[in-house]
This record gives sequence, structure tokens and C-alpha cells, in this order.
Amino acid sequence: MADMTGKVITCKAGVAYEPNKPLSFEDIHCAPPHPTEVRVKITNACICQSDLYFWKGKDTQKLFPRIMGHEGAGICESIGAQIKHIKPGDKCIPVWQCECTKCPKCKSNKTNICDTFMFNWGSGLMPSDKATTRFTRIEDGKPIYHFFGISVFSQYSTMDEACIAKINAKADLTKVCLLGCGIPTGVGSAWNICKVHSGSTVAVFGLGTIGLAVVEACKVSGCSKIIGVARDDGKLERGMDFGLTHTLNTKSYDKPIEEVIRTMTNGGVDYSFDCTGDPGVISSALECCVEWGGVSCILGLVESSQRVSFHPAALLWGRTWTSGLFGGYKGRSQLPELVDQCIAGRINLDHYITHKLPFSKIQEAFDLLNTGGCIRCVMDYES
Amino acid sequence: MADMTGKVITCKAGVAYEPNKPLSFEDIHCAPPHPTEVRVKITNACICQSDLYFWKGKDTQKLFPRIMGHEGAGICESIGAQIKHIKPGDKCIPVWQCECTKCPKCKSNKTNICDTFMFNWGSGLMPSDKATTRFTRIEDGKPIYHFFGISVFSQYSTMDEACIAKINAKADLTKVCLLGCGIPTGVGSAWNICKVHSGSTVAVFGLGTIGLAVVEACKVSGCSKIIGVARDDGKLERGMDFGLTHTLNTKSYDKPIEEVIRTMTNGGVDYSFDCTGDPGVISSALECCVEWGGVSCILGLVESSQRVSFHPAALLWGRTWTSGLFGGYKGRSQLPELVDQCIAGRINLDHYITHKLPFSKIQEAFDLLNTGGCIRCVMDYES
Repeated sequence: MADMTGKVITCKAGVAYEPNKPLSFEDIHCAPPHPTEVRVKITNACICQSDLYFWKGKDTQKLFPRIMGHEGAGICESIGAQIKHIKPGDKCIPVWQCECTKCPKCKSNKTNICDTFMFNWGSGLMPSDKATTRFTRIEDGKPIYHFFGISVFSQYSTMDEACIAKINAKADLTKVCLLGCGIPTGVGSAWNICKVHSGSTVAVFGLGTIGLAVVEACKVSGCSKIIGVARDDGKLERGMDFGLTHTLNTKSYDKPIEEVIRTMTNGGVDYSFDCTGDPGVISSALECCVEWGGVSCILGLVESSQRVSFHPAALLWGRTWTSGLFGGYKGRSQLPELVDQCIAGRINLDHYITHKLPFSKIQEAFDLLNTGGCIRCVMDYES
Repeated sequence: MADMTGKVITCKAGVAYEPNKPLSFEDIHCAPPHPTEVRVKITNACICQSDLYFWKGKDTQKLFPRIMGHEGAGICESIGAQIKHIKPGDKCIPVWQCECTKCPKCKSNKTNICDTFMFNWGSGLMPSDKATTRFTRIEDGKPIYHFFGISVFSQYSTMDEACIAKINAKADLTKVCLLGCGIPTGVGSAWNICKVHSGSTVAVFGLGTIGLAVVEACKVSGCSKIIGVARDDGKLERGMDFGLTHTLNTKSYDKPIEEVIRTMTNGGVDYSFDCTGDPGVISSALECCVEWGGVSCILGLVESSQRVSFHPAALLWGRTWTSGLFGGYKGRSQLPELVDQCIAGRINLDHYITHKLPFSKIQEAFDLLNTGGCIRCVMDYES
């Protein structure tokens, strides 16, 4: 492709026009970066459950038309005048869990939340001016909203510098595209948020990508019991390949599954992870962890209309309930370390990739994730 | 008094016969200790809100007749044959948060829960045989149940060795009797569970003894903002003496108090403490702490019929919800350190003592705590 620096690029994107309706795979315009922005040529991306959540309009905002997608990887195409941390040609992962590196939160080691992100979450606009988008429809020039600041369901996407992690040049983009959301969320929740350790006992509810990544991280950390909980024997069996030591199909038990787990573990597990977003499961996950010092981490996204109800006596003897975004990783400064760990083989990305499709078949990829048979489908943006 | 070692002692006690009915101040029999037990001559005690909670039958068990009381101090009167850590004449604090020192939990530094306590909580029987009581009615010899394993509303009380903290001989029993429950719970929640530190911002909901002890501990730790929240100007004003830097009377605001606090603190406090047991206040306490890394600690006892309802998005950006018993202190091995800190003046016990009464006026002491004007009323068992 010719040098398009400073020019608008016409490219293919999957555009969501309304909830639950198939994406429109169409040509759009992607504007060049403003001074603090970067334009990325996306080479590979996957669909994450959060894409489905917003595509289905389960959030309160229902912002359309929008280009979704937040698990991808690519190559820096061009940069704004003030950009120093990345240059054209560098491999990178767009990170919705962005990091401006300058705000008080970015300078704090207590959080991975960044004030740029705080803005980006809901508006669908660019943080540099809080008013415009870099995507427009070709036929009428109307803006198309961004998603999580990165919108990787487009062959080119312009984003704030806070949303770009420059990564190791040795990284295989067809694999590290997985590291945009689900896997860091699972791995980091085990390693950074809960700090599981050798000998810990663990229960993981829900065995999609995030749950499997929790399982794999717990295995790497040497946890002694890793109990998978699901309603599907196929998912439980697959979880064994990622490190489960025990499986529980909730359909096989008449009594509450938390009681089964407490009996299996002499009072409860040290750590539990909800990766379902189901309020009832979230309560079970809390109550299956040991009353004295157990930690339960909520990772599933819960529909905005739902609530979780509990009696505080569940915490009184020393349980802790927590959560966190992106596994506690700071996007720019810490995600590259996880890329390096994957390159070194500490985390095996291959076994998350169950399907591959060309980008043009993005709707098929959406549908695949809904079936349960797919962990991750890697889309190739050039085929 | 003559040496009563090995003999039944007849003494005064405040016996609860049914919920909400005045205690019967009557003579009862207190049996001598079995081999792993200790009999204590109680010299001073106070009433704690948890006594009221159980006296009112807000728990699910409603065990009567029972001798309540779990904030007291005294002198070891006699010991069972296997007792080594205390001898007759030693000053001591009976601790419901007991510590057998032998069970796996007592040997763990992750919890202050002890398996002896796990048994004691509900049965009202002695842990050594799990079948009998050491209190009996004089007129018919029927058993009177124990409370939290220690039952200090009796001039003599026999308890398991796990429930006795031997303390510094210099301790003033008329003051350290306060250290049986509320003050360690408040101080330890700040110091041990949340680990507040210099510069932390804090909100404390409810300014009874536990809330005031949280405030004092936060002041000692150098917290920069200590915001008290209550519905009573008198309690808020009193809180200033304990270390509050800001006061909020919820009656003075139309909008939710968590919004007021978030505005005052650039997004929320680092730590919040619920000391009310009100489900709505518990939710406010969570939501007034900063979304990125804030910690909210539930200390109030919630009625068994009530629930707290929330949306997990409240935790998603990195909040933590926690709780704990007795401020995380292990009763026998760690409470004596707090006694020493009080003797050294680090925590000022005097300003919690608003009333004094002879033990015979125990019902008056109960009624005083219900008025709100009383923080702690110290009863003298010999006057």
C-alpha cells in the first residue's frame, strides 16, 4: 500500500448499526492521527464476550453506529506529531485498558485505571478533543463511534497514544492478538489481583476464555486444587487441558454447588473466580471460598438490570470480595511483559485458538462465539 | 473470699430468660473448671451492641436462658489441671475471639478464626465436652447457656483456655475491660484488615464505640481526611474529639451521601467503614470509596432477615469489599499487645467511658446503650 501518512484511508470495517442485527461489513473512512494519536493497521483480531454484550445492547448506553472490537494486534501505520513511544512499522497491541502514563492514577501503583480511559469508556469519541471520531461513513460522511477507544473491527483504526502498547518485534501477531482482553483479564486476576500461589486451592466458575486463562495461570503458579464449575461436560473436559484438577457439572448436583466445594476442600477454596456474570453464580462463588480469609473475584459482566443480593455475614468471618479490570495490568507498561512471557512459552496461546476465519466473515465469528464450541476465532485481516 | 478451687461458687449474674425482657439479676452456680478450662473472677464489664442484638433475639438461634456479656476483664480464680498459660491471680481479658493455638487456623497467619470458636458461637455449651454448661440455676439445677464462650455478666465465669488472654499486670481492669470487643474491632479493622496509612482518606459510617475506635486508629495512623457520617449532630461533634476532620449529617443532604463524599475527595475515599449494620448504609459506604482501589469494610451486624443488594459494576474498576471479626486480632496472642499500647497511651481508653454503674444495675446499663448518649458504661462487680 502507498504511504498514506496524513491522508484518510478507505478500508473495510464491521459496523454495528443496531443491537443484535448482523454487522455491516463495509468500506469506511479512517482519518489520520491527530498529534497525540496513532493509526494502526490491524492484522488480526478476535471476538470477546464483551463485544457480544455491547452488540446485544445489554449496556445502558446503546451507542450506534459503532465499530466494536477490542482484541486485536497490528502494526503502527502512522503517528501524530507528539508521539514518541512507537514508530511506523512497530508491532503493537491496541489496549482498551489504556495508560496515558501522566495522570495521577497512571503514576500510582494502586490501580491500572487511567483518566483517559475513564473518558473513553462511554462516549465513543476521541479523548484528545472529546468531540469527534476518526471513523466516518463514506456515503454521507456521518461519524461512526469508537469502542473502548480502539475499535479493532476495522482494517485501520486511529486511537489515542494511551491505547497503544508497543510489543516485542518477535511476537506472532496471529497469536498475540489474543492478548487484548480475555487472557490478560484471566491471567492477571489470578496473578495480580488475587495473587494465587503454590498450594492454593481455587474454584473457577465458567470456562470461556477468561475462565480458562484463570485456570492456566493457577496451574503455572502451582495451585494444588483447581476446580472447574460449568454446566457443560465438553467445557469441563476442555478445561482439563488448561490445568483443571477437578470438574463439577452443576447439573449433576441437587445441593448448592458451593456446599459441594466446601466439602471437597475442608471448608472452602482459598480463591474463587466468577467468569459467568450470572448473579446466582457470583453468590455461589463467594460462598464456596473459605470463610476465614477466602477471596472471591468477580470477572463476569453482569447485565445492567440485574443485581446481586447477599447477607454481609458471608463476609463477616474474613472473606473478601473483589474485582478489577484487565487483570490489574497497566496496558502500555505491563502488557508487553505478558507478551514476552507468552513468547517464552509460560502461557500457551495456541490452545485458545479453536477457529480461524478471514475478516470478511466477522459475522460468522460472532455467531461462533455464541455456540460455546469456540474459545477464540482469530480473524485474518489480509485474507 | 475463701479458696474455692474445685468447688462450685454461688455468685450474682444477669440472666436473660427471653428476648427483650429485663435481665434477672440473681444468684447462680458457677462450676469449677474442667482440665482445659479456667474460672475467672470478673471485676468489670461493659455492654456491647452485640449483647443487645442477641438479647433482642435478632439472631436465628434465640438461645435462652443465657448469661450474656463479652466485654469484660478480671482475675484468674482457678485453673484446670492442664492449664499452663495463666495461673490464679493473673489479670486477664476473656476473649470470645478465642485462640486454641493448636488448630490449623490458629497456626495460620491468614485468619484469626479458631476452630474452638467455630464451635462456641452457636451452641452455648462448653467446647471441651460439647454437651454441658458450667452455669446452673440454683432453684432447680437446670443449665444456663454460655454466650460467645465467655459470659462475663456473672461475677464468676468458667471458660475454655482458648478464651483467656493473660494481660500485663499493670493493666487497669476498670479500663481494659473495654478491650473485649468494640475497640479491638474498630482499631484492628483500620490497622490489621484495611491497613490504613499516613495520608489515607477515610469515611466512617456510624459513630458508636466501633466507629469511634476506627476514627481514633485512623488518626493515630496519620490519615489525612477522616469523614464521620451519622444522623445525629451530637455523635458527630463527639467524633471530633476522637479524630474526625470532617462531619456529615446525612439529614442535611438531599442527594446520596456517597456522592457528597466522592465530591469532597476527588472521586472517593481510600477506605470506608460501615459501623451501622444498615443495608442501605453498607451500600453507601461501598460507593463512597474510590472506584480504583478503594476498600470498604463492613463492621455492623445486619439482622438475619435483611440482605444487601448491589450491582457488581460497583467492584469492577477495582474496589474491594471486606469484613472481619475482632479487627483481625488473634485473641490470646495479639490482644495483649493492644493492652500494652493502651497502657502506653497510644489509644486513649478514658474517652470511651461515659458512664459507670454497679453490676447490680446491669439492666440500667443495657437501657443506657440504647439511648445513644452512652458510649460505654463500665460496671463495677464489687460495688
